[in-house]
Parts: sequence; C-alpha cells; structure tokens
Amino acid sequence: MSYERQSIRRMEGYGYGEQPDDPDVVKLNTNENPYPPSPAVAAALAQFDAAALRRYPPAESEAFRRLAAAQLGLAPAEVLVTHGGDEGLRLAFTTFVDPGAVFAMGYPSYSLYEVLARVQGCRIESIPLADDWSLPADFCARANGADASLTCVVNPHAPSGVLLDVDTLAGIAGEVEGVVLIDEAYVDFVDPALGHDATRLIREFDNLLLLRTLSKGYSLAGLRFGFLLGNPGLLEPIATKTRDSYNQDLLAQTLACAAYTDEQYARSTWCRVRSARDALASGLAALGFRGPASQTNFLLVAPPSNWSLDARAIYEQLKARGILVRHFDTPRLGGMLRITAGTPEQNSLLLEALRGIGEVDHAAQE
Amino acid sequence: MSYERQSIRRMEGYGYGEQPDDPDVVKLNTNENPYPPSPAVAAALAQFDAAALRRYPPAESEAFRRLAAAQLGLAPAEVLVTHGGDEGLRLAFTTFVDPGAVFAMGYPSYSLYEVLARVQGCRIESIPLADDWSLPADFCARANGADASLTCVVNPHAPSGVLLDVDTLAGIAGEVEGVVLIDEAYVDFVDPALGHDATRLIREFDNLLLLRTLSKGYSLAGLRFGFLLGNPGLLEPIATKTRDSYNQDLLAQTLACAAYTDEQYARSTWCRVRSARDALASGLAALGFRGPASQTNFLLVAPPSNWSLDARAIYEQLKARGILVRHFDTPRLGGMLRITAGTPEQNSLLLEALRGIGEVDHAAQE
Repeated sequence: MSYERQSIRRMEGYGYGEQPDDPDVVKLNTNENPYPPSPAVAAALAQFDAAALRRYPPAESEAFRRLAAAQLGLAPAEVLVTHGGDEGLRLAFTTFVDPGAVFAMGYPSYSLYEVLARVQGCRIESIPLADDWSLPADFCARANGADASLTCVVNPHAPSGVLLDVDTLAGIAGEVEGVVLIDEAYVDFVDPALGHDATRLIREFDNLLLLRTLSKGYSLAGLRFGFLLGNPGLLEPIATKTRDSYNQDLLAQTLACAAYTDEQYARSTWCRVRSARDALASGLAALGFRGPASQTNFLLVAPPSNWSLDARAIYEQLKARGILVRHFDTPRLGGMLRITAGTPEQNSLLLEALRGIGEVDHAAQE
Repeated sequence: MSYERQSIRRMEGYGYGEQPDDPDVVKLNTNENPYPPSPAVAAALAQFDAAALRRYPPAESEAFRRLAAAQLGLAPAEVLVTHGGDEGLRLAFTTFVDPGAVFAMGYPSYSLYEVLARVQGCRIESIPLADDWSLPADFCARANGADASLTCVVNPHAPSGVLLDVDTLAGIAGEVEGVVLIDEAYVDFVDPALGHDATRLIREFDNLLLLRTLSKGYSLAGLRFGFLLGNPGLLEPIATKTRDSYNQDLLAQTLACAAYTDEQYARSTWCRVRSARDALASGLAALGFRGPASQTNFLLVAPPSNWSLDARAIYEQLKARGILVRHFDTPRLGGMLRITAGTPEQNSLLLEALRGIGEVDHAAQE
C-alpha cells in the first residue's frame, strides 16, 4: 500500500546531475567551480574544535549574517542563511504560496522550481522565454494575470547564461504584485566591468528576495550554504516560522565565514573562470557550436548544423570518453548541451574530444 | 504589506531553547550530551581535504546509509539520511499529510510537531496523555477516528522520559491506519538491560518510520545529522521527491560516519549519562522534587510542594545563577522543569543551587 499524498505520487522528482565517484572523470555537468575553496577554509577547518559539535549551533547563523551584511552594505536583518540555495527556494514556496495558489516562472529555468511547486501543490504559470532567452515583454502582466504569489527569475539565467540588467529587475519587482525571487546562484561570475549589483533593490521593493549561494562562486557546493537577501519583514516569517530552527550546522557556519571573508581569493577564481569560459566559447564556436553569450560559469550550445549527431548523442559519446556535460531532455533544450567551464586543461580535453567526435561523424557522412 | 500566507501569519514559530554564547553557563536546557563526540570525529576532521568541498556531496549519503544498515541489520534502502531529526519530521508532513488532512499526536510531546503541522496546514488531533505520561487506551482509535494521515509518538517520551515497550509500539503500528512515526531522538540512552530495539518493526509494518539522530547519543547536535528507518516504499517518495536533493553536506556525512563507526565510544557516554541522570534524580528527590522515571538524558520534575516558588520562578533563579534548565509555559507542563543530565560536576552545581534557592525560600516563608 502507498501512503504518500496523491499529489506526491503523481509528480516527478528533481533529476540532479550525475555525481561520479571516479576522480578521473572530467566533470563539466553541474556547474561547480573548477578551483578549490579559499585556503582560509582549510585553515578554519584545521582550527575547528570537534568538541564544539556537542552543542546546538547558533540557530540564526548570526556570525555569517553580520559578515555578509557588512560586506554588502546591508543590515543583518536583511540576510537569512539557508541550507544551500535550494532551501531558500523551498522556503519561498512554503512561506508565500498557498497550496492551489500560483507560482510564475520563465521557461526554461532551473528545473527544481517546478518540482518545489508540485511538492507545495501550487499551480505553475510557465511563461516561455523569448528566442534570445530574455523574458517576454508581457512577463509581469502574465504573472499578475495569473495572480502569482511567487515569481522566480534566475539571473544570470540558467541554463543560457544570459544576464538581465538591474533596471530590468527593478521593473519586474515594481510591476509584479506578489513576491519576486531573483535567483542569483551565478551572479558572482558576472563581468565586474558591468557593475551589476541588485542588492540596493531590496530596500526599494518590499516584495523582493535575492538568493545567493556559496556553492559556485566560493567553491563550496559540498557545504550546502546559501542565503537570502530581502526586506526584514519579508524574511521574518521564514526566520521565525517556516525554516528548520537549526538550519545550518556549526562547521558550515564556520567555514562559510572563512570563505566569505576571503572574497579576494574568490574573485581571483571568478576571473580565471571567466577567462576559461571565454576561451572555451571561442573553441566551441571554432568547431561550429553556437550559443548565447554567457555571464555565468557555463555555456549553452547547439551542435554544428553539419553534424549528423544530435546533442544527446554527443553527450553520450563524451560520457564514453570520460567527460560529463549536461543534456536536458526537454523540447526547448533537447537540441543543446550545457557545459560547465572547467580549468583550461579540462576545457582542452573537452574540445579535443569534440574534435574527434566531429571527425568520426564527418567520415561517417562521407 | 505582508506577503506571507495567512496561515503562516497566524501561527507561532517553534521556540527553541536558549543557546547562550557564554561558555561558563551550566547548560542543562536542550538535552545535549555533556561529553564531546568520539575522538574519531576529530580524526576525520583532521584528515578532511577542504578541496573536496568544491563538488556537490553524495546526494543520498550512501556511505552513512550502508554503515547504519550494516550496524542495524537492515538494508541501505531502509535508511534515509536527514538534516537533523527535524528535517525527518518535516518531510513526514510534506510527504504524507495533505493540507487540511489530520496529524495525530500525544499531548504534550516535542512542541515542534504542532509547528510543522501548522506550516503544512494540517488539522491537529492532540490526544492528552494519561497522568503517568503513557498513551491513553483509546489513542489509536482516536487517531483512526480523526482519519490521521500521520501519527507521531516520541519514544522515550519527551519531555517526561517515559519509555513505551516494543510490543506497545507494534500495537500502535498495527492498529493505526495512517503512517506512524516513532521519534527515537533519545533511544540511545535507554537502559541496555531492557533490550529495547524497535528496528525489527519496520519489516513488520509498512506504515512505520523510526526517527534517529546523532544530536544526542553521538554528541553531534552541532552537526545536524539524523536518519529515518522504514520500509523502502515508504522512504522512496521522500528520497526522490520531497527532500532537498543534497540534504547533507560532505563534511557532515564524513563526520557522521566516523562517529557512528565508533559506537563503542558513544555507548560509553550513554552509560555515563545514565549514571549521572540517576544520581541527579536521587539528588532532586532528596530535595523533594518529584517526577517520572526517565529512560532519556533528561528529567521532568515538579518542585517540592512545600516551596513557595513555582517552576517558572525556580527556572529564573537558576538562570540568574548561571544555570539554564527548560521551563515550558503550557497548562500541562508549566508546573515542572525539564532538566538535562549534565556531567556529575554540572549536576552538583545544579543541586547546590537548588539547595540554596530552597533555603532562601524556606527562610522567606518563616
């Protein structure tokens, strides 16, 4: 006999990217930073007294909140720590969207949004993105027309890497009537020359949440540490009612503080990732792959039109050669591959493998 | 303007115990183990390579699940890792209880249950415990009469410390029609002479979940590591749909394995805690405090009837002397204190303080 709720029984779970045990796999499938976390993390780890784990951790991650607030020019009450970005997303549903109410999103986006909406029993207003992956002009009108309680926009966009500017975000926060969550999982990688910084918006709009994570920018995907920025009134019901009281362990709080304090190191990895990404984009373009300009640590590309292999087949051939990239089996994305920018060495291995796959493909066509 | 759901606005959050920064406070308020975690935890910490945090953690905490399964005589598919016991509780609501459906519990119990029920929008069938803190004879009939989708029983009971035996649990799992979750947060402290072990029940009853945590028995409250035991069919929708995909970080998985492997060390702390608890119970009884026999690491006691001070006043006087115990301001519990068994030294300080408080109280009455 099944005991789970019917709505849970009917839904599909989130399909996370493969996490192979084999350390020799070139892993370009889940957008991890190719560089290790700051040496300050290892130092904090070495100094950590295991005996301190006996006690409950600080329930509200006060030290990290003070640190992040100081660095971002905010107050600690405008920062809420979450167990990875995923918990921040889940809590936005739990807190702001009644079962049966509406969640709005651009499609495609991070596929977890739809899973969380189904768990919460929400209706989904899925608004197709324009061909250039930007939000359609009627995006806000459609969210409002559907009476959306929560609207999520991932920016820079996943899986395309396309960035909306701060004025556009302000326009969305001002026009959309419900809560707007801007998922900034990849914002650390945005070209600093653009001066992109949406944090000031949280004081202009009392319905706006920004979601950050240390997973990518701070090379700590294994630590599960994220945070929300927003108006204290918007964060308060999450802080006091809907989150698990002790939602971050003491070690993660300690290491997150160490990593975030050493922003200079993290910035050096962002710079290297951008260089590697741009070189990879050039290399892929030279092979005939096409895709939008990315402000993240990944690229979304379509295979050359003169190849007989489709994206799925290329994904599989790469996997057979020990290189993992991501293929999403959906109508809009099925013809493309999402490739994380690795180290220059990893990217060279990928390009070389693709060149080889292309040569075999051409030979087969002749 | 408020954006949170009306049901969230109306509810009260969970009131967790005070977590003072002052290391000199004698902290007997949140049932932490007074002894540090196994030396194996410090050793695993020292060997941990911070660079490994760059990648996502094993999504399903496979290593710990294999380890726990082997130690408990179960299969890994019968073990599901959660972020502290609290996540296991929350996921039971998310997975098995539709908004508007019913959750049943003995009252009083761990106060988080009601908070989680309200977040999920459940109705609560709160079934008063008998005067001796046991479940009333019609407990199952009432849960079934209310059509409860989920019934929680904390065993040993919190906050009384009273243990239900395995036959009683089997009776509940067999009679209750919905999912039954036995919250075994304190089960490690049960007198081994009783041979209490409910794990075999999960193969007899496909509606039964057992919840465990490393917070108390393994001195790792700061790590947030718990697990559910149950029929694979019952765990599967939690594993694949309702939990956050990466619900345990890599460090916590590593340290949890180290601690759980060194069960012998943990057992030595359980033995010491039982001795200290029994000595504390005798000391309290000698002062005139009364309470049920406890199979946990805490005692629930009522002040001596000849004291003019009530439980709340004693709590406050202890706090003023740097000793924290727990007082619950509810009709059934307001006249009692819940006191965690500390080290013999901490317990002596508590007894000495209570003796002093009692003397002042008697002098004031004369």
